[in-house]
Amino acid sequence: MAWVPLVGGIAALLLTRELVLRIRRKLIDANDEDEVDYRFLSVAAREAEVAIRNKEGGPFGAVIVKDGEIIAQAHNEVLKTKDPTAHAEILAIQKACKNLGKIELSDCVIYCSCEPCPMSFAAMYLARLPRLVYGAQAEAAHDLGFDSSHIADAIRGTSTFQKSNCTVRRIVHPEVAKVFWKNRTKVQIY
Amino acid sequence: MAWVPLVGGIAALLLTRELVLRIRRKLIDANDEDEVDYRFLSVAAREAEVAIRNKEGGPFGAVIVKDGEIIAQAHNEVLKTKDPTAHAEILAIQKACKNLGKIELSDCVIYCSCEPCPMSFAAMYLARLPRLVYGAQAEAAHDLGFDSSHIADAIRGTSTFQKSNCTVRRIVHPEVAKVFWKNRTKVQIY
Repeated sequence: MAWVPLVGGIAALLLTRELVLRIRRKLIDANDEDEVDYRFLSVAAREAEVAIRNKEGGPFGAVIVKDGEIIAQAHNEVLKTKDPTAHAEILAIQKACKNLGKIELSDCVIYCSCEPCPMSFAAMYLARLPRLVYGAQAEAAHDLGFDSSHIADAIRGTSTFQKSNCTVRRIVHPEVAKVFWKNRTKVQIY
Repeated sequence: MAWVPLVGGIAALLLTRELVLRIRRKLIDANDEDEVDYRFLSVAAREAEVAIRNKEGGPFGAVIVKDGEIIAQAHNEVLKTKDPTAHAEILAIQKACKNLGKIELSDCVIYCSCEPCPMSFAAMYLARLPRLVYGAQAEAAHDLGFDSSHIADAIRGTSTFQKSNCTVRRIVHPEVAKVFWKNRTKVQIY
């Protein structure tokens, strides 16, 4: 039975090798993901740069990626279009949905140069984006003068619109009630 | 001094009359505002109706009013345009800004058939809209199947994106940092 320790030794060696290979593979995968995320965030940063260079809006860029390919990229165009909703993320989501011909982006990743404001974050959520990678923190935008923390505060209040400067009135309106109840079965949820 | 009680009586009568007139005026003003709000909310309700009739989106309408005049009106077009951001409020804000040629709507009122979702509320705030009048509560939309409460929950968490299904990663990226610091003096705040 002299072969027993030999076989045992070979088995141990093979197992160790497999373990080393697995760990290595995991490390490479992690690095690959790091590299991919870093690369697409660079594109978002360059979009932000364009917004400032062309005086189109604030220094914010966004990129939407599917299966490693850029589906849409955009930068803030609030000043250019005089549209307060023309944030990089909103424009990128609109472009991505148009390019893919569908309402939701559940197979995509969004890269934003800066932490999105509550409007853009909510839009991401409505678009079913499952992953966000961002660079600068909201505080960096705040330091420049872009402050959207009051919006989050308004939504954070015990009632939805508390703490905002906006006065809110609710009216019990029969036409409004009708539009919901009458169309109960006709509504297509998206 | 027989005229003293006479003058006193006349003064008392005049004061009472002034008081009655003031109260009446206040009541009429309040009724006028009620009527105005109710009327514009009807327009929003009819916009919501159009969205369903034409299968363009959910039963949501919005109207933006300045000095008693409608500046913009819109309904949800998510299904028509396959754009998840095409909420009535967003479209109305975009139209109003375009029509007035400016980024902010601080002299306007927004009328929404339903309580806005967090994206639309944030957009209202970004547009500096100082007043919102709405009809149906968010629960009515929720009952139909439109649920945006998870978005508010996500923003409500102790960290901005807690409680959402979206994974969030922050990367410290030199290009992102540069875009902020390099352009510190060039940025135009809106």
